[in-house]
Amino acid sequence: MPVPQIQSSAQVQTDFLSASDAARLVAHVGIVEVLRLVAEAVEADYGRWQDFDKSARTAAHSDRGVIELMPVADTRDYAFKYVNGHPLNPLQGLPTVMAFGALADVATGMPRFVSELTLTTALRTAATSAMAARRLARSGSRSMALIGNGSQGEFQALAFMALLGVRELRLFDIDPAASQKLVRNLQPFLPQFGATMVLAASVQDAVRGADIVTTATADKTRAVVMAGDLAEPGMHINAVGGDCPGKTELDAGLLQRARVFVEYEPQTRIEGELQQMPAGFAVTELWRVIQGLAPGRSSPQQITLFDSVGFALEDYSALRTMHALARRTGLLSQIELVPALADPKDLFAMVLQARAGQVVPLNERKTA
Amino acid sequence: MPVPQIQSSAQVQTDFLSASDAARLVAHVGIVEVLRLVAEAVEADYGRWQDFDKSARTAAHSDRGVIELMPVADTRDYAFKYVNGHPLNPLQGLPTVMAFGALADVATGMPRFVSELTLTTALRTAATSAMAARRLARSGSRSMALIGNGSQGEFQALAFMALLGVRELRLFDIDPAASQKLVRNLQPFLPQFGATMVLAASVQDAVRGADIVTTATADKTRAVVMAGDLAEPGMHINAVGGDCPGKTELDAGLLQRARVFVEYEPQTRIEGELQQMPAGFAVTELWRVIQGLAPGRSSPQQITLFDSVGFALEDYSALRTMHALARRTGLLSQIELVPALADPKDLFAMVLQARAGQVVPLNERKTA
Repeated sequence: MPVPQIQSSAQVQTDFLSASDAARLVAHVGIVEVLRLVAEAVEADYGRWQDFDKSARTAAHSDRGVIELMPVADTRDYAFKYVNGHPLNPLQGLPTVMAFGALADVATGMPRFVSELTLTTALRTAATSAMAARRLARSGSRSMALIGNGSQGEFQALAFMALLGVRELRLFDIDPAASQKLVRNLQPFLPQFGATMVLAASVQDAVRGADIVTTATADKTRAVVMAGDLAEPGMHINAVGGDCPGKTELDAGLLQRARVFVEYEPQTRIEGELQQMPAGFAVTELWRVIQGLAPGRSSPQQITLFDSVGFALEDYSALRTMHALARRTGLLSQIELVPALADPKDLFAMVLQARAGQVVPLNERKTA
Repeated sequence: MPVPQIQSSAQVQTDFLSASDAARLVAHVGIVEVLRLVAEAVEADYGRWQDFDKSARTAAHSDRGVIELMPVADTRDYAFKYVNGHPLNPLQGLPTVMAFGALADVATGMPRFVSELTLTTALRTAATSAMAARRLARSGSRSMALIGNGSQGEFQALAFMALLGVRELRLFDIDPAASQKLVRNLQPFLPQFGATMVLAASVQDAVRGADIVTTATADKTRAVVMAGDLAEPGMHINAVGGDCPGKTELDAGLLQRARVFVEYEPQTRIEGELQQMPAGFAVTELWRVIQGLAPGRSSPQQITLFDSVGFALEDYSALRTMHALARRTGLLSQIELVPALADPKDLFAMVLQARAGQVVPLNERKTA
């Protein structure tokens, strides 16, 4: 039944964005522009926080790492992300964090878009950090210490230079090769911002006098990347790395001295720096600041801390942004994830048609 | 850097089985053989129940339907399924249930296999029903009433004919067209089993005197497809359709009269026929019967009831079986779901290489 098959297959194609095509998309649109668009989308979606069906992600822990599923939905779109965190992966040639996910129609459950989310997660995390810092960092912030110069480093640096006006980066990593990689990769982007980078000899050197401190380390352990006494009045601390039970970067004393902002409190209590604090420790959810229901930074001397663990809503925003950009740039391919049925109540017909050699393979190659 | 790229891309290819290729696989291997292999895998995995990290699935409900994520893992493989249930979908030319999922390595988080799971879910549900009935139905059971002749119908009928020895099918559906479709689709398979089909005029006609009753209806409502007084001594009832809060098929009185078996009690209490019963209502988890820790049917007069809602472990078993069969039959394709990085700590290099036009597209077409 070729005709009904073609008709129905048309509506059951699922768009696909591969990892290479996501990189092409970012190169074509421009990484600064993509960071800006993702930050706008995340901000707009936090601005309608009440529209979403939210839950803490499910996590499967092993001695090597963690695998998580992060679902979220409004009345129109359902999104989920699969993401792992395995700090020893680089020893086997694999990234520490790999991710993919999908967007589906809430009205039908039809999966509309499957995408790589490894690169996209780095983009949305940095965009969210910069979006939050716009409200939490001192106005006129120009210098940022970047502690941990791994996969997130370039994205954080670019987002803060492009969206916040950071002009001086102070880099530190316990692995000098990581900092060298960051310098090499960022060099081409500095002129457009008139920005400079310095390699710091220690966390203390990097942090001293900085307006903003971003910590993005990956060990799945309780570490103290930044001692509490290093936090200076007026600093904004963007804590990106502590995002798993048993994985923290900061000293509890630092949290005591700071006003702490989180994405989604139930999840951050389990996963964030917050796991070190008593259940009653006061925090402010970021959406309340964005909606004007709570103040962000309330004085130039205040120490603000964004205890970022990554929330499913940011992936929802990033998936929708990347889908729209991929469609516009012709970088989408299609995969046949769900069957094209001439009669939607007759699933078994697939088997009979395949036996008769009648299953017309759908084109899984690039369309445009 | 083509050489390191090719090296690393080789290890980050993700196998993909499309919906059409899953149908081709079933046609090539033979549906009866696939049902047998999936039933064996499900039985073997229930046999090592204690090895798995289990949780009730997460569900996002809307007025139109539900979207669920079903994760499960042992120390080697992580599996999850995305699945929806939208009873009104056929009005829009879409199946009521659509699904896809993935297998990943627990040691690294690398997604190894992404697959359609719409057809595969129908196969694993029927295989699990027959596997359970082997222990719960009266030995020598030959007749089965099939109430609800939708997408699951053919799969349930074939599994019970092939794995249990059912030789007489009594079909009933409130929609005569559904029963006619089932008759048309099953006709070619009857001779090999020496089986017969009869169209019953009512649920009562279908059920009277049957050894086994399978209910597989789809309305997302509290229905009484089978009144309690229709259950006869010695019957085995395979209740497949009630699988969602607010969606039941049976009368509480029937559960009172039967010995009830479930897949995973915490999930079935929320989703199964069991949701109608008090929290203390006694049930037996199927794995305990398979491991010999609890009896299955204990007398010829006993009414047994398998309150099946579908558990993630069955998808784990089915994903591994389909992956092995697809590899053997050359029906796998590959998708580039995670990036191929020359240096796994240098994600940003993807962006720089794409800017320089150096990202070599990975072949997303069929391999064999």
